[in-house]
Amino acid sequence: MSFSRLQKLIDAKNAPICAGLDPRASMLNGGESLFDFNKRVIDAVYDIVPSVKPQSAFFEAFGLGGLESLSKTIKYARQKGLYVILDAKRGDIGSTAEAYAEAYFSSGSDFECDALTVNAYLGSDGIKPFLELAKINDKAIFALVKTSNPSSGEVQDLLTDSGESVYVSVAKTLDALDDSEHLGFVVGATYPEQLKELRLKFPTTFFLVPGYGAQGGTAKDIAAAFNADGGGVVVNNSRGIIAAADPRKAAQDMIEAFRGIK
Amino acid sequence: MSFSRLQKLIDAKNAPICAGLDPRASMLNGGESLFDFNKRVIDAVYDIVPSVKPQSAFFEAFGLGGLESLSKTIKYARQKGLYVILDAKRGDIGSTAEAYAEAYFSSGSDFECDALTVNAYLGSDGIKPFLELAKINDKAIFALVKTSNPSSGEVQDLLTDSGESVYVSVAKTLDALDDSEHLGFVVGATYPEQLKELRLKFPTTFFLVPGYGAQGGTAKDIAAAFNADGGGVVVNNSRGIIAAADPRKAAQDMIEAFRGIK
Repeated sequence: MSFSRLQKLIDAKNAPICAGLDPRASMLNGGESLFDFNKRVIDAVYDIVPSVKPQSAFFEAFGLGGLESLSKTIKYARQKGLYVILDAKRGDIGSTAEAYAEAYFSSGSDFECDALTVNAYLGSDGIKPFLELAKINDKAIFALVKTSNPSSGEVQDLLTDSGESVYVSVAKTLDALDDSEHLGFVVGATYPEQLKELRLKFPTTFFLVPGYGAQGGTAKDIAAAFNADGGGVVVNNSRGIIAAADPRKAAQDMIEAFRGIK
Repeated sequence: MSFSRLQKLIDAKNAPICAGLDPRASMLNGGESLFDFNKRVIDAVYDIVPSVKPQSAFFEAFGLGGLESLSKTIKYARQKGLYVILDAKRGDIGSTAEAYAEAYFSSGSDFECDALTVNAYLGSDGIKPFLELAKINDKAIFALVKTSNPSSGEVQDLLTDSGESVYVSVAKTLDALDDSEHLGFVVGATYPEQLKELRLKFPTTFFLVPGYGAQGGTAKDIAAAFNADGGGVVVNNSRGIIAAADPRKAAQDMIEAFRGIK
């Protein structure tokens, strides 16, 4: 089962974290390709970190060559035993969502990853095709519920006539699909109250938590996100690790911060 | 200005339509590549149709080779004078949205198109970077407001405490960015009442209308979407054109249907 697999990796390394691979031109050493950069980060952290999260946008921005680097990066990370969460926030109508699921969850495809982030604005039609293939090929999705950015409330915090926010309604719609092994939520570290609220309402859902570090979230902000067993969470840090002078040291510091709150 | 450019093409051909390029393996003639298939469709319709809309998912599903075909398809269509709307529904936090804008709106990039569909669930932070580059490079975005699929109401039709639906709130948030030359809405043909409501509320916004044909929308359903000048709309048809035995005839029939409602 897919989140069971992620949880095992997290437990084995005692590190509920994920290194976000958001390579920018300014970070590359002279002559270094996107893949070389990612390989350098992966080689530095793969034995202490359970997961990496390449952000598709930063590869798409480099065109076809960037996407070739993305494919190589995903394959290399998986060879190293890392759980690869591709952050692509895909979302479309059912027949199109099927094509996206095929792109990212088919065995042996160029972009085969372990989990994919998705956007649920189109409702359950656009989510089900991912879950169908996820069950067959041991994959998972993280759907956006409450995002980490400053304007996330403009849509997500709207109050509905049932007295609930849009993000809680979205979470309930997703929860009704009844597949917490393959369907998790994205909930930002920058909104600790909402993170706590969502954990209380959804005790067994796996959370991908962005917004740690550069965006302002701390380990303390995230403490309430863990489930009753102290699991169910993977916290992402992108710039804080990959742009550090010593990515391994940065990952170790982050891991220590989470050991400190337990 | 970008929608002015699209409107000129629509007026010149008297055809407010767009041929959706959603190639599937089952549609390809023996030995035909994705690009060959698209070229065949483009060659058949480019003189009567102002715009094409490649759906990124159907290229991503073919991996790196599929994305190479996407790049070639976009370039070929633009060479033929077509306005290319890339349907990729991208959406992320601000710094990531900048990278997506670069991928699709930079001059000479592998995927440079004329317009891109985007998802506004993250609020205005994720939209502004697209508008900034759109203004400089004469591009445009269509943000999802009310989508054409059966489950679109699960999130989009939720009533907020102001008495408005989520899709109207999203539309207002977008409208507040005050850039109707570069920011349009996606509104499905399958929800004619909502299409009419949105035109009344947003008289000058450009609408991309999917859901015609295979999904059930008719020209009559879409009549109320046009603005006071009879413009401001581009209606997409994917399977109805590209899977037809004679794509040119199918496009002509669709064009006639719209001339019939004027």
